[in-house]
Amino acid sequence: MQSKTLRPSPITPTVDLDKQGVQHGFLRLPYSRDDSAWGSVMIPIAVIRNGNGPTALLTGGNHGDEYEGPIALFDLARTLDVGRVGGTVIIVPAMNYPAFRAGTRTSPIDRGNMNRSYPGKPDGTVTQKIADYFTRELLPRADVVLDFHSGGRTLDFVPFAAAHILPDKVQEAKGFDAVKAFSAPWSMRMLEIDAVGMYDTTVEEMGKVFVTTELGGGGTARAETVAIAKRGAMNVLRHAGIVSGKIDHRDTRWLDMPSRDCFSFAEDEGLIETMVDLGDSVKEGQVIARIHPIGRTGIAPAEIRTKLTGLLAARHFPGLVKPGDCVAVVGTVD
Amino acid sequence: MQSKTLRPSPITPTVDLDKQGVQHGFLRLPYSRDDSAWGSVMIPIAVIRNGNGPTALLTGGNHGDEYEGPIALFDLARTLDVGRVGGTVIIVPAMNYPAFRAGTRTSPIDRGNMNRSYPGKPDGTVTQKIADYFTRELLPRADVVLDFHSGGRTLDFVPFAAAHILPDKVQEAKGFDAVKAFSAPWSMRMLEIDAVGMYDTTVEEMGKVFVTTELGGGGTARAETVAIAKRGAMNVLRHAGIVSGKIDHRDTRWLDMPSRDCFSFAEDEGLIETMVDLGDSVKEGQVIARIHPIGRTGIAPAEIRTKLTGLLAARHFPGLVKPGDCVAVVGTVD
Amino acid sequence: MQSKTLRPSPITPTVDLDKQGVQHGFLRLPYSRDDSAWGSVMIPIAVIRNGNGPTALLTGGNHGDEYEGPIALFDLARTLDVGRVGGTVIIVPAMNYPAFRAGTRTSPIDRGNMNRSYPGKPDGTVTQKIADYFTRELLPRADVVLDFHSGGRTLDFVPFAAAHILPDKVQEAKGFDAVKAFSAPWSMRMLEIDAVGMYDTTVEEMGKVFVTTELGGGGTARAETVAIAKRGAMNVLRHAGIVSGKIDHRDTRWLDMPSRDCFSFAEDEGLIETMVDLGDSVKEGQVIARIHPIGRTGIAPAEIRTKLTGLLAARHFPGLVKPGDCVAVVGTVD
Amino acid sequence: MQSKTLRPSPITPTVDLDKQGVQHGFLRLPYSRDDSAWGSVMIPIAVIRNGNGPTALLTGGNHGDEYEGPIALFDLARTLDVGRVGGTVIIVPAMNYPAFRAGTRTSPIDRGNMNRSYPGKPDGTVTQKIADYFTRELLPRADVVLDFHSGGRTLDFVPFAAAHILPDKVQEAKGFDAVKAFSAPWSMRMLEIDAVGMYDTTVEEMGKVFVTTELGGGGTARAETVAIAKRGAMNVLRHAGIVSGKIDHRDTRWLDMPSRDCFSFAEDEGLIETMVDLGDSVKEGQVIARIHPIGRTGIAPAEIRTKLTGLLAARHFPGLVKPGDCVAVVGTVD
Amino acid sequence: MQSKTLRPSPITPTVDLDKQGVQHGFLRLPYSRDDSAWGSVMIPIAVIRNGNGPTALLTGGNHGDEYEGPIALFDLARTLDVGRVGGTVIIVPAMNYPAFRAGTRTSPIDRGNMNRSYPGKPDGTVTQKIADYFTRELLPRADVVLDFHSGGRTLDFVPFAAAHILPDKVQEAKGFDAVKAFSAPWSMRMLEIDAVGMYDTTVEEMGKVFVTTELGGGGTARAETVAIAKRGAMNVLRHAGIVSGKIDHRDTRWLDMPSRDCFSFAEDEGLIETMVDLGDSVKEGQVIARIHPIGRTGIAPAEIRTKLTGLLAARHFPGLVKPGDCVAVVGTVD
Amino acid sequence: MQSKTLRPSPITPTVDLDKQGVQHGFLRLPYSRDDSAWGSVMIPIAVIRNGNGPTALLTGGNHGDEYEGPIALFDLARTLDVGRVGGTVIIVPAMNYPAFRAGTRTSPIDRGNMNRSYPGKPDGTVTQKIADYFTRELLPRADVVLDFHSGGRTLDFVPFAAAHILPDKVQEAKGFDAVKAFSAPWSMRMLEIDAVGMYDTTVEEMGKVFVTTELGGGGTARAETVAIAKRGAMNVLRHAGIVSGKIDHRDTRWLDMPSRDCFSFAEDEGLIETMVDLGDSVKEGQVIARIHPIGRTGIAPAEIRTKLTGLLAARHFPGLVKPGDCVAVVGTVD
Repeated sequence: MQSKTLRPSPITPTVDLDKQGVQHGFLRLPYSRDDSAWGSVMIPIAVIRNGNGPTALLTGGNHGDEYEGPIALFDLARTLDVGRVGGTVIIVPAMNYPAFRAGTRTSPIDRGNMNRSYPGKPDGTVTQKIADYFTRELLPRADVVLDFHSGGRTLDFVPFAAAHILPDKVQEAKGFDAVKAFSAPWSMRMLEIDAVGMYDTTVEEMGKVFVTTELGGGGTARAETVAIAKRGAMNVLRHAGIVSGKIDHRDTRWLDMPSRDCFSFAEDEGLIETMVDLGDSVKEGQVIARIHPIGRTGIAPAEIRTKLTGLLAARHFPGLVKPGDCVAVVGTVD
Repeated sequence: MQSKTLRPSPITPTVDLDKQGVQHGFLRLPYSRDDSAWGSVMIPIAVIRNGNGPTALLTGGNHGDEYEGPIALFDLARTLDVGRVGGTVIIVPAMNYPAFRAGTRTSPIDRGNMNRSYPGKPDGTVTQKIADYFTRELLPRADVVLDFHSGGRTLDFVPFAAAHILPDKVQEAKGFDAVKAFSAPWSMRMLEIDAVGMYDTTVEEMGKVFVTTELGGGGTARAETVAIAKRGAMNVLRHAGIVSGKIDHRDTRWLDMPSRDCFSFAEDEGLIETMVDLGDSVKEGQVIARIHPIGRTGIAPAEIRTKLTGLLAARHFPGLVKPGDCVAVVGTVD
Repeated sequence: MQSKTLRPSPITPTVDLDKQGVQHGFLRLPYSRDDSAWGSVMIPIAVIRNGNGPTALLTGGNHGDEYEGPIALFDLARTLDVGRVGGTVIIVPAMNYPAFRAGTRTSPIDRGNMNRSYPGKPDGTVTQKIADYFTRELLPRADVVLDFHSGGRTLDFVPFAAAHILPDKVQEAKGFDAVKAFSAPWSMRMLEIDAVGMYDTTVEEMGKVFVTTELGGGGTARAETVAIAKRGAMNVLRHAGIVSGKIDHRDTRWLDMPSRDCFSFAEDEGLIETMVDLGDSVKEGQVIARIHPIGRTGIAPAEIRTKLTGLLAARHFPGLVKPGDCVAVVGTVD
Repeated sequence: MQSKTLRPSPITPTVDLDKQGVQHGFLRLPYSRDDSAWGSVMIPIAVIRNGNGPTALLTGGNHGDEYEGPIALFDLARTLDVGRVGGTVIIVPAMNYPAFRAGTRTSPIDRGNMNRSYPGKPDGTVTQKIADYFTRELLPRADVVLDFHSGGRTLDFVPFAAAHILPDKVQEAKGFDAVKAFSAPWSMRMLEIDAVGMYDTTVEEMGKVFVTTELGGGGTARAETVAIAKRGAMNVLRHAGIVSGKIDHRDTRWLDMPSRDCFSFAEDEGLIETMVDLGDSVKEGQVIARIHPIGRTGIAPAEIRTKLTGLLAARHFPGLVKPGDCVAVVGTVD
Repeated sequence: MQSKTLRPSPITPTVDLDKQGVQHGFLRLPYSRDDSAWGSVMIPIAVIRNGNGPTALLTGGNHGDEYEGPIALFDLARTLDVGRVGGTVIIVPAMNYPAFRAGTRTSPIDRGNMNRSYPGKPDGTVTQKIADYFTRELLPRADVVLDFHSGGRTLDFVPFAAAHILPDKVQEAKGFDAVKAFSAPWSMRMLEIDAVGMYDTTVEEMGKVFVTTELGGGGTARAETVAIAKRGAMNVLRHAGIVSGKIDHRDTRWLDMPSRDCFSFAEDEGLIETMVDLGDSVKEGQVIARIHPIGRTGIAPAEIRTKLTGLLAARHFPGLVKPGDCVAVVGTVD
Repeated sequence: MQSKTLRPSPITPTVDLDKQGVQHGFLRLPYSRDDSAWGSVMIPIAVIRNGNGPTALLTGGNHGDEYEGPIALFDLARTLDVGRVGGTVIIVPAMNYPAFRAGTRTSPIDRGNMNRSYPGKPDGTVTQKIADYFTRELLPRADVVLDFHSGGRTLDFVPFAAAHILPDKVQEAKGFDAVKAFSAPWSMRMLEIDAVGMYDTTVEEMGKVFVTTELGGGGTARAETVAIAKRGAMNVLRHAGIVSGKIDHRDTRWLDMPSRDCFSFAEDEGLIETMVDLGDSVKEGQVIARIHPIGRTGIAPAEIRTKLTGLLAARHFPGLVKPGDCVAVVGTVD
């Protein structure tokens, strides 16, 4: 077992993960640096426990510029009535807390992309140390895991919950059931092409039920997408039997990203003009975006054509684009 | 006259502003610096002239992170058929070009906010030199002036065109007529409380017809808002009699911002939860946003209540907020 | 009068400076920038008023890395019993608030040194706008003004209160009386050689009683120096008759800085070895500091000798020194 | 043996470590970078050798913002009379030389914390390459090792010398004897809880006598603490029999840090008010520091209470504090 | 074989390396970051193939501030007549493309020095991922490899082509023959002292014919040195039988760097005065450079004397110098 | 007189400008900042005086990245034999000393371009304060003024000395005579088109004899160009009758820059290929540079054609070029 040979995590929780009741505290991670020789990173954590039922681990801020998850989870941590809980709810509203405070995708300390840092290392970077603590301390306690994502400052998505297509079809079905319970406007069956280093993979390899989301983007949150997140979190807790009450079911449409042809990348830099909006239908060969050169007027823009028929599921967000940026993702609909 | 006593502008155009036909060129502004001793800023400009009819000056990128205007104007500069023009169209798609290239509101060279740098100075900062060139060289040629704005990376607006309430009611009426011709979904009668240093003021004091806009925000542009910008530009040119063809009229609703009570400011830092979306109706006293403290879980958020009944016309865009940020603008509807 | 011809201050207070009772609020200064298009600087202010007695204006954070003043004033603003007040106490614990938040001497926004930005400008930099608000709005209300300083991150002082040698000997005497009331371990009669742009000068030219301090330094505060600051603030308020109760008098020793010969400057860069500690006696010609070259071992250090006999009143704080840094200040004692 | 399998160190000394007499030179470490394709880091080193007696290795600047050690060692390297030496004294006044030049705890090149980079790597970062050279080239030559520390810019300590509690009680006793010889005002028996990557551990595992110190802090040095460092270095050399002459013994008080309860950490950000000064006695439960929120006036500070009775041995230095910073260390006295 | 056990390269080419004809495309390397969540690095590549003759791999921009190679290769990629090719020419004008765009030696993303990053890692830094792609995908296809270097911004060289002294004398002779074909004014037999991590070593260990160059420097290119690069590239392709036509032979002089004594390093910082120019003859003991201290006037400069007789083959380029910089390289002539 | 109404300069010299003999000292300019509250800029100055003959003011480092002047002047200040002087030589080897230390054209403190900051201001930026001191304190003492320039890091020149075409033909003739005495390989008659803010203008308007130079560039100096600078400085001093001895005359060729047509500017960004080298003859319409796009291979470069017949007198130095950069200057020859 990996956990036997690795040195212990340097993280100390200020809450007791086994204690009954409501606790608000921190995961304290020592971090010596120029502006604090004996400093630490203090990651907020809430534990709401009532009895010995199943455990849910709810996380946001895996990327620091995605906001629906943190808003829903700071709110839930404060308002969840322990009397309605039968089991344990562990809430970490901002997993990559340094990135979350900075409002950036990656950590300002080590530029770590949390979702590519798993399973982590106890003697690695700050980001890897956090990942390691989740892998060896928090995840083993969980039965169901919900990790909130949105597009962040540079992407925007139609709002969906998702689970992965998995080799273990029983585990897969449990994931899709939890996605259905989440009740986002869209639901996605994801086939991960490059799963190296992901939290998702680490969770699923432990056999847990795992739900993730993309609920908007642009580095903001709207009232509408926050409502989806709040409802989804409660629905998953109810579905798992941890919180009492009826699931608030909503209609959802299922979406697929069947191949690499879903993705269009820029080969030029310039001013991007998205020709269709999120959720619009597109046909194979249609110009879905143009890139205007900005060095002078009078030059024709480069055209980006979709390779698939479907709908615009995600798009590049900022007004300027660089070569290699993902410009658009087209999903197919059942 | 100011223009007599000031030294000449250091800017040299590579186009002849009096020449007939289509020209694509630059306003060249010498800018000596560490990485180019004899460098310059090259601001793209297009001049489309056919005969001696009236002149329109169309500008975007007054703030560098607002994209509907630059997209519409790079497109227009390339596609406007000189044969349909009767007069002159001067297009500067990115007025604060250094800011536009950097994707920032203000200039990376001098942090100049272009819209607070008018009338400019020929021996001032780079931003002031550009402003001065507009004030003394381009604006005197114009009959009608259209300046595109959006919310930029930190604000988001319902899309509207606007003109100012002016002491000269004849000039004011011409402005509102041009706004009507623009045909954005919303139209605004603006009463500028603090007009010091604005392009708007400089233009209006010269007696020109002036239209401005706020067409979205967040540092992006959507297909829908770009379409509004393109249609609006053509409509204004048609309304001014410079381009032939019929105005493409659309329904618009008029909006007012009657007083300082429209604006709500944050007094706390944290994670912002906007409780209503753009265009939603709000009632005096309603909580329209909450600010969640992010240092720990379990703490109640601060609440922001609107002082007016109306609709949410603009809002803070990024997921995090700082004390003093404008959180929301509520407009009133006729 | 200057105040007539200048445009009004852009600052809006959220407190009513004329209202009775205790108010905690802000001076809100609009500050548009890349990360907040409609942002503001929010400077905390407290007003404690009871009746129509005299007014004291208490300030800290004129330089952002000096801490005795802000600690004493945040504490006083919260704990001062309005029932014991007979008049008005206006407290701004951090005058250059952006600098204070950054922990730097000057403003991170414009690198403004607040104490060289007076009388300020309503259309200048953020620092100049704050200065202007003090000059035209707050200072005219004050009878006595106490401004806290310490050495900041790069200087360290023996703790003293001070007033200036002034042409108006009546005003001068009132200043020295207030210094005596302050009761710091040391008291200083200051002859300002270069008074251009100082808050001190602006206050004194309005004929106010003005007390300033240097209470330590190094970018920290000690329990001992904070106690001096708290006692001094209360003593000055009692001395002014604004707060009831007896002055807590302590022994003080008077110090002079008679000429430029008090100051020693480095001509070399290196590792500084201060040969005497603050408060130690020194004799003319004595080596008070040495500068060790750090490029290699085996090279003799440069020696700094004092030009005066007296005591070490201030010294360079960081371990490294640059050419031109003030290495030491020697004061003379009565 | 590790030294057999690793590639050779890339460091070249310009001194001959085996040569008799006084040499001043460099450890040259190639460091290719943007501003010097074939550049190097040049770490000053002095070797004073007379005969074949024991060898002492004296180091400062393990952290780059700690100054008593470098001052004492630049001074000693220049002034130590080779005629009084019987053995070898190797002096590296600034081990993490890039950090020392920058005045920062960690290296500006790779942010390496030297004291967590041992035993180092010959093909790692610049900091790891320096560590590796000490581990494989310098330490094997040494009999006694003295490494100077202070608190640096963000901590301040009562001045003490220290040795570790070790499994080998003979080695431990030699360490405490050397500490006694050092004769600082305070002496510490240290139980290292987390010794991973430390220079100390590397030295002690080789069976050397090892003395370390904390002699003040704040990123400065005082005449008093420099005197302690100079006396301590000579005393250790005399104690080791390398330099002739009598030990200059001074009284010392022994201090312990028995458990994690010695340390208090901040959970809030703000303005820190240390309620006791270094060396003051404190009682279990006493408020030893307060953290004032700085967003507005009128809010109660957070209180930090000590979990132990003893004295304040170390404290946070800067005036502002962040969540996770070590606020205070309480030591217990024999 | 390493290539079997490593995960596949994350790089996707947009060209088909086996296709006949001329293709211009990219190596696309996914690179998620704050300003592009799903971004990539797009490295331009051209493939010119005609039949199944031998393959040449031509590269520039191994270091990003060296320009003769990129100019010659962007030019060659556009102008090489596929009808004259008998085999395959793969051209990557800027191997460390992020560094090349930034105009810096190392990558702005990870500060990677490409020429010390071989053989690379598929899961390492961006620089290591590029190196890995060359090692496992491009190099195995090549018969002859030409990698252009110059001095970059901080060094300047007499223009030469070079091959390494190798254990396999047949391979060595092929390298020197190719160097002769290149026909630079100078030719170098290089004995690599520290070959760890170099592209050169990786190529040669695969048994390929390898030619490298140093064609000037200073971060610029001259018409004369560009002509050398263009002629050299064509000559090597003709010599390899890939392009038809006669080699354009020029006289060359052979140069050696026999030992570490070729190199002189600065021990001081200051203003460097090179006393001889590139290509000038020097005698052992001659002062070839002086370093003027810049802190004050009147101080004698440090003198750098050559340890060899020969000619000045390379020199430090910028006007200021730091301790450890290579000041001069003296080569010996046959 | 301006000097009457302005406040005195804040600069204090540590040398006595009227004293006989050799002095090495500083111009000390107080500069309070975050890292030194009471810091100063220390500008080295040497004064060599013997009797009451005429005064020469010799300066380098007007731009901080130009090295022939500083090398020649640090050398001259140290070696000039006072016994051979009949008058006064004031040497400031680095006028914009902060820029010179940083190796940048402009000041790192305020980004001031010294040669556009004249006549300066005593209460302006650091750069303006230095300019003001020259204008009001040093220049009035001078009879002849020699200011060294080179191309700096971003330009390269054929080496020339120059004087301006002036309205006062007697003064003009004296300038050209001094240029002839300087004896650079090339000599230039300069017609300044935009003379605002220049040191040159300030000097000439005082009626002084003024010589300036461009002696190479690229941010380096060669042995050859340093020799030109040293000889030129001595020749000018001899020509002025301040130093005894015969002028070392060399052949020179006269060059003109008759109009704006001399200058070619880039309109595109990319990799620049200079098609001719400095000093090469060019014909009107000839392609003198090409700009290769670097986003992909296979795209034709932009061509820059000269508008004049003459020789390449200056060129853009770095390998990359931006829109607006001066690419080449063509001079005409007598």
